Amino acid sequence: MSKLSVAIVGGSGYAGGEFLRLALNHPHLEVTQVTSERNAGDPVHFVHPNLRGRTHLKFRRMADLEAADVLILALPHGNAAKHFARFEGLAETIIDLSADFRIKDPELYRKYYEEDHPAPELLPSFVYGNPELHREELRGATRIACAGCLATSAILALYPLLKLGVPLPKDIMITGLVGSSAAGASGSDASHHPEREGSLRVYKATGHRHHAELTQELPGRFPLHLTAISTPRVRGILTTAQVFIPDGYSERDVWGAYREVYADEPFIRIVKVRKGIHRYPDPKLLDGSNFCDIGFETDDETGRVVIMSAIDNLVKGTAGHALQCLNIARGWDETLGLEFVGLHP
Amino acid sequence: MSKLSVAIVGGSGYAGGEFLRLALNHPHLEVTQVTSERNAGDPVHFVHPNLRGRTHLKFRRMADLEAADVLILALPHGNAAKHFARFEGLAETIIDLSADFRIKDPELYRKYYEEDHPAPELLPSFVYGNPELHREELRGATRIACAGCLATSAILALYPLLKLGVPLPKDIMITGLVGSSAAGASGSDASHHPEREGSLRVYKATGHRHHAELTQELPGRFPLHLTAISTPRVRGILTTAQVFIPDGYSERDVWGAYREVYADEPFIRIVKVRKGIHRYPDPKLLDGSNFCDIGFETDDETGRVVIMSAIDNLVKGTAGHALQCLNIARGWDETLGLEFVGLHP
Amino acid sequence: MSKLSVAIVGGSGYAGGEFLRLALNHPHLEVTQVTSERNAGDPVHFVHPNLRGRTHLKFRRMADLEAADVLILALPHGNAAKHFARFEGLAETIIDLSADFRIKDPELYRKYYEEDHPAPELLPSFVYGNPELHREELRGATRIACAGCLATSAILALYPLLKLGVPLPKDIMITGLVGSSAAGASGSDASHHPEREGSLRVYKATGHRHHAELTQELPGRFPLHLTAISTPRVRGILTTAQVFIPDGYSERDVWGAYREVYADEPFIRIVKVRKGIHRYPDPKLLDGSNFCDIGFETDDETGRVVIMSAIDNLVKGTAGHALQCLNIARGWDETLGLEFVGLHP
Amino acid sequence: MSKLSVAIVGGSGYAGGEFLRLALNHPHLEVTQVTSERNAGDPVHFVHPNLRGRTHLKFRRMADLEAADVLILALPHGNAAKHFARFEGLAETIIDLSADFRIKDPELYRKYYEEDHPAPELLPSFVYGNPELHREELRGATRIACAGCLATSAILALYPLLKLGVPLPKDIMITGLVGSSAAGASGSDASHHPEREGSLRVYKATGHRHHAELTQELPGRFPLHLTAISTPRVRGILTTAQVFIPDGYSERDVWGAYREVYADEPFIRIVKVRKGIHRYPDPKLLDGSNFCDIGFETDDETGRVVIMSAIDNLVKGTAGHALQCLNIARGWDETLGLEFVGLHP
Repeated sequence: MSKLSVAIVGGSGYAGGEFLRLALNHPHLEVTQVTSERNAGDPVHFVHPNLRGRTHLKFRRMADLEAADVLILALPHGNAAKHFARFEGLAETIIDLSADFRIKDPELYRKYYEEDHPAPELLPSFVYGNPELHREELRGATRIACAGCLATSAILALYPLLKLGVPLPKDIMITGLVGSSAAGASGSDASHHPEREGSLRVYKATGHRHHAELTQELPGRFPLHLTAISTPRVRGILTTAQVFIPDGYSERDVWGAYREVYADEPFIRIVKVRKGIHRYPDPKLLDGSNFCDIGFETDDETGRVVIMSAIDNLVKGTAGHALQCLNIARGWDETLGLEFVGLHP
Repeated sequence: MSKLSVAIVGGSGYAGGEFLRLALNHPHLEVTQVTSERNAGDPVHFVHPNLRGRTHLKFRRMADLEAADVLILALPHGNAAKHFARFEGLAETIIDLSADFRIKDPELYRKYYEEDHPAPELLPSFVYGNPELHREELRGATRIACAGCLATSAILALYPLLKLGVPLPKDIMITGLVGSSAAGASGSDASHHPEREGSLRVYKATGHRHHAELTQELPGRFPLHLTAISTPRVRGILTTAQVFIPDGYSERDVWGAYREVYADEPFIRIVKVRKGIHRYPDPKLLDGSNFCDIGFETDDETGRVVIMSAIDNLVKGTAGHALQCLNIARGWDETLGLEFVGLHP
Repeated sequence: MSKLSVAIVGGSGYAGGEFLRLALNHPHLEVTQVTSERNAGDPVHFVHPNLRGRTHLKFRRMADLEAADVLILALPHGNAAKHFARFEGLAETIIDLSADFRIKDPELYRKYYEEDHPAPELLPSFVYGNPELHREELRGATRIACAGCLATSAILALYPLLKLGVPLPKDIMITGLVGSSAAGASGSDASHHPEREGSLRVYKATGHRHHAELTQELPGRFPLHLTAISTPRVRGILTTAQVFIPDGYSERDVWGAYREVYADEPFIRIVKVRKGIHRYPDPKLLDGSNFCDIGFETDDETGRVVIMSAIDNLVKGTAGHALQCLNIARGWDETLGLEFVGLHP
Repeated sequence: MSKLSVAIVGGSGYAGGEFLRLALNHPHLEVTQVTSERNAGDPVHFVHPNLRGRTHLKFRRMADLEAADVLILALPHGNAAKHFARFEGLAETIIDLSADFRIKDPELYRKYYEEDHPAPELLPSFVYGNPELHREELRGATRIACAGCLATSAILALYPLLKLGVPLPKDIMITGLVGSSAAGASGSDASHHPEREGSLRVYKATGHRHHAELTQELPGRFPLHLTAISTPRVRGILTTAQVFIPDGYSERDVWGAYREVYADEPFIRIVKVRKGIHRYPDPKLLDGSNFCDIGFETDDETGRVVIMSAIDNLVKGTAGHALQCLNIARGWDETLGLEFVGLHP
């Protein structure tokens, strides 16, 4: 099979760099262009030193972008929509890693992004890039809006219960513990190492934008609430979702729901071990991998279920997720390029 | 004023070592004995190397314990109650840092500790060691059961709303992010550095023993739920409590409640800043200090309030809290020995 | 090609677990047995949770070991030699990850290991497992003693200068900064997370056992000295070697030496960049990868050259190195199973 | 005793903030002014959140600076010298935390700072701020150039051997492992948390500016070499100095030298313990404290001595050191305001 050519637009950021890392190892892809205004002319390994010796690609300016089979847009919020007229002329398949095309309802977009969507007419053309929820729509898709990282961890934690219509009697409370790479490659006062190292700090108590994705994607419209906390890790999200199951439901039912819904998922692992020290999901084990580990614990007295999910925000939360979508869209084995299992210890 | 003599029983652990550090700097205390079965005969600085040059004390066996003015019990769970007959003959004032005498109701104790209390007749003689809730009872007290660390962070986060009788319409959800020192000085497979470093792992999803203290101490008996997560930090707890305020209440009312209840507290700081990068509580800033920093954020649309509290689990969560109680019991300035403000960065 | 069967003896440790991770991804290998006395009967993913879903292997006892094509010995020091009679009957190819067969000279062994070698007659049959120095001997080899991790980082840092016979006028000073996983999977007081986290501590100022490997392997017998320091990282070694070049030599000559000697090495990268923030080797970039990154800087005034090398101690320092040796021994592509490039950030 | 008024110029950086923290706890000092151009008008606790509730000081502009008893200059390199005419009119006592007045020889300054000194005529008026070497000159001093942090750790490691005139036969090799706060409060690409976290990277292989201080301060002019490596810590420096003692000297002589020279030093602790896990200096134990811990280990075969010293770069390396100098200059107890011993764990 001849390889598809891939152009990564905005390739000096963490999402673009991670897609590049994965694509370099994919049997059917060949990355031919990577753009960065700031680093144009430099080898990509100046910015992504892990790729030293692995590729001789150099950054080019977006103005020099040429046609490709697949365009990966890894631009700051708003840019994909703004320049879309140009992008759609360059490639048949476009995968956007930003939030620009995730939300289908312009009203919902306005509420969370506090501005009118710049190109609402484009929204229907994009499939929301979450394989576990939208696998059938992804087959053959040419425009994919890759899901947000915190949204993905929360959606995958809750989806089985909601899909099966378990009538949850109380509000759902979600807490996401997030690594520093989720804020991107551009520094800020808060990301200065002496300030951020060892920090545990709520960074978005209410009104997190990924709430919009939860509202859109999770079936049943249960009231749910989201708080995001920054952690000392660089990669990784650990999400806990607190739900209450109705009378008559037990942990066995919960387990059954996850098994049923995720039975054939190649990247979801149900973690429910009674021995050893690794009984629950932990993002520490997932750096670089596309797995989403999910576990849960039930309080019989109150019916509370604590659902935990862990991902690498840059892989299953962004670039790996996107590649999984592309594999599905093209009809390839879903795991191609995503074989890395993570490290221990 | 002549100094009171202090004996620390179980002084090789983190709680005992931390009380020793604080007491060495207290103008009215003189630590004369520190016990450790394992390290008897060694200088205390072999175990607590920060105290090198600061004290020439050596560990002795518990069997060699002599009378003192104040006995600090820093023993593993169950030992304070078991040996209490001996301890009460040695000192007028006894402060227990363990959980043995915190819970007044033997039934509640049995539920969370899964055994009958070994000496229920002693329970009424102890004051629960939380200055913010029990300052008046602590004055002149000679037996103090120092509050648990996670319990303290959660109680201080919620107390003002509950004390003022705000009618909370929904369940309260508490998530505690806890450092590794909270599990004590004895190693385990899970505390081996390669396993624990960088780990974000739920360690007690439901049924945490400190729930018993919340049940006992928080006014109003609202339904509340507690999940504990281990973090990469050594010290520190960040607790978020998710509450819903009734219609008609606003963030202004919440703020008013905290200001009113904590107005004169020397170790509670309300963190509500509109500028800079330190807008919310962060345990990173509290290592070694006795402060409890409290902040909150309100979601107007849903009435949800995210209350955040941060402490150093070994200071405000254990040894500092205990010293604050002793200062109150003796009628001294409450802040004696607790002046350290923490470090930045 | 039919796959070779592999048995990993001592597979619950970090070295054995890492070889397992790599072998599971190797096209010509099939791991059929993994032993652990402590965990016999349990799935390997109880101990190596990253392999959950990737293998259904269970640990067995060493007593139940059956024949295989390749035996990987990942046992504590001394055990490979002690049980060798049994092992050699089980497999044609034996790769030992311990120090048992690295040192050819029993006197040198005695000096650093402070005991007589238990089976000196076996020593000549093993090739020292370092591809860069012993590639030709490794071709077709059936007994390989995999090089030590710190030794590997130091040897690779110094080899080109010494091989080319540059007459170094002064002693060579080597400092190795080592992650906690190098001490293995068994906990100790010093590895308890609250003690080790954030620690920077010399752990072997003089007399490090890997010095024996440097003495044996580095050409020219220059006086060299080694100090090892533990760092807050889990994986990774950064080694600096301080050498002095003779009058008339310049940085250009140094660069030339490294280029010449390492020109065709698939896992050595010379890092010498004039732009960006990644100008020198950093083990942070190598977690999980088999690269050894090497850089250097010259002080014209004194002729001092600071050579820096970085590796992942469990990959290029142990299991990856071993797999590279096996690839060479079997005549396969040297990079098979070792394609992972590491992560950024 | 009435308090001396203190003005901190450049108080939003880490050095100025640390001096403020210490001075707030000093019985004879009252900080009355703190300047920051960027934060003028804001409470100092917006920038130094650990001081919340401890002071109500606000930042002012340098233009609004008024007279004070003591001026602490904590400005970026070059600014103290440039504005000195103004500063000397404002206070009798001036302590500069920058490098501007440390080097007495303008030629030496030019070599390492690569420019002519802007005010060489001022250099003789400053005492080099290192109490262990210059205590007598510091008594009554009114101009103090506080020593550099890495220089301090190296000087204190080597001083006894050199002062006693031990004839060292070989070059001295110094390696400094440095925390991220040493680079100051201003962010850079390299200090962005995802890049710096967990990083072990040489940042100054040769030509470190603090070499100038070693050249000036260490007796005997032995050839010495310095390499600086950044570590994952925020605070702290661990320095190893590799020296060779002449034939006939033993570890006992080394120990004797350190005991003799540092016998009465309140902030130097010789760490030489045969038991437990804290046998060598470790900056982890020194955060916030003014101690310099020094240890050593000797290789009898080669005469090599590994000397290790650990400090908190912001305390004994900067602000604490400065306060110790001020205490000496004023004839106060040298330890005033510097009582904090550091934390364990």
